[in-house]
Amino acid sequence: MRIDIISAVPDLLLSPLNTSIVKRAQDKKKVEIHIHNLRDYAFNKHKQIDDKPFGGGPGMLLKPEPFFECVESLKNQRDYDHIIITTPRGKTYDQVSANRFSLSKNLIIIAGHYKGIDDRVREYFATDEVSIGNFILSGGELLALVIVDSVVRLLPGVLNDSESALQDSFMDDLVIEAPYYTRPAEYKGMKVPEVLLSGNDKLIKDWKDNQSKSLTENWKKINSSE
Amino acid sequence: MRIDIISAVPDLLLSPLNTSIVKRAQDKKKVEIHIHNLRDYAFNKHKQIDDKPFGGGPGMLLKPEPFFECVESLKNQRDYDHIIITTPRGKTYDQVSANRFSLSKNLIIIAGHYKGIDDRVREYFATDEVSIGNFILSGGELLALVIVDSVVRLLPGVLNDSESALQDSFMDDLVIEAPYYTRPAEYKGMKVPEVLLSGNDKLIKDWKDNQSKSLTENWKKINSSE
Repeated sequence: MRIDIISAVPDLLLSPLNTSIVKRAQDKKKVEIHIHNLRDYAFNKHKQIDDKPFGGGPGMLLKPEPFFECVESLKNQRDYDHIIITTPRGKTYDQVSANRFSLSKNLIIIAGHYKGIDDRVREYFATDEVSIGNFILSGGELLALVIVDSVVRLLPGVLNDSESALQDSFMDDLVIEAPYYTRPAEYKGMKVPEVLLSGNDKLIKDWKDNQSKSLTENWKKINSSE
Repeated sequence: MRIDIISAVPDLLLSPLNTSIVKRAQDKKKVEIHIHNLRDYAFNKHKQIDDKPFGGGPGMLLKPEPFFECVESLKNQRDYDHIIITTPRGKTYDQVSANRFSLSKNLIIIAGHYKGIDDRVREYFATDEVSIGNFILSGGELLALVIVDSVVRLLPGVLNDSESALQDSFMDDLVIEAPYYTRPAEYKGMKVPEVLLSGNDKLIKDWKDNQSKSLTENWKKINSSE
């Protein structure tokens, strides 16, 4: 898989893309990630990438031309399965989208910043409009990183057996896993639930299933109050 | 404000905390951000921070002791308004939480990684359990960065007038802003909506209100299908 990320603050992306599982996936050649500095595609002499919004209002917008230059040049080189734009108006990102994007050969992620991007970029290019949730960030870069992490870990051969994604919370629709404990069995007076030390697989499975069921119900309750 | 972040992969956090608005907020002394490497709080000779889960199953858990060492030592030095743990079982992060956290003097954010954290850490310390949404990430670090960005931009004096947070999408409950456009007024045959060039403030406001209303309704529709 190849992922191209276009950003006005590309330096923000560096450390998360060079750490942990995303780094390892690149080292293993399971994914190629290319960062594009929007400013490199600005052709006037001041390398200007932002301008005031028509119709007034505070803040600066990202101009359309550098995005068109960058995306067109990428599209001339290969076909892209998805051109994702990060925007508050989009669908909130979820595991269904992660699974879908993970089947792609080539992805572009366009990260907004400042007040946003001239809307013609979205209208002309975006196949997917994605929001991170009901809160305000300074830009789309953290959502771009979220998409990369959630997608890359689904690629075959990226996780090793012991990290197996299959049992994770949300891999199935809205299942929260039971609490986990490790040694010491007693710490600061707090004991690990006895059943987990019992060695009885049937009892352990029943306990985990019950805990998971009750946490999932609780999750639905605390997350349905909007 | 002071924010302490505890992580098993602290290097992941570096570039987003040293870019753009979060960097500027630190430069302006509006916020102090301290990263704690979990491994520095592991006291056995191998600096071990993870171990197998009781009751079996794949993956490694983060051990409780290094978190206790780190959090206790921070709590001995000052009072914390919130000790936030990132966990799939938590409430999905939203602007209400961002606003609430932004009123704090001192915050701790505990980021999980690998299969998660021994549950006694959550039980003993967490005042807030926060999830990033219905998808799986390799760790809580990206959520920690999301919390920092969304909180720091609310601190007085961090944004300048032209970035004013007050008009952003989601600042009020679920309002998506109208599309934005900047120069050129026509680009690749696509024209900016004429009303925005009219100079008529009343017409512009009506257009923006209508667009915003219809995008907000659409947002609610596409995000209510779970």
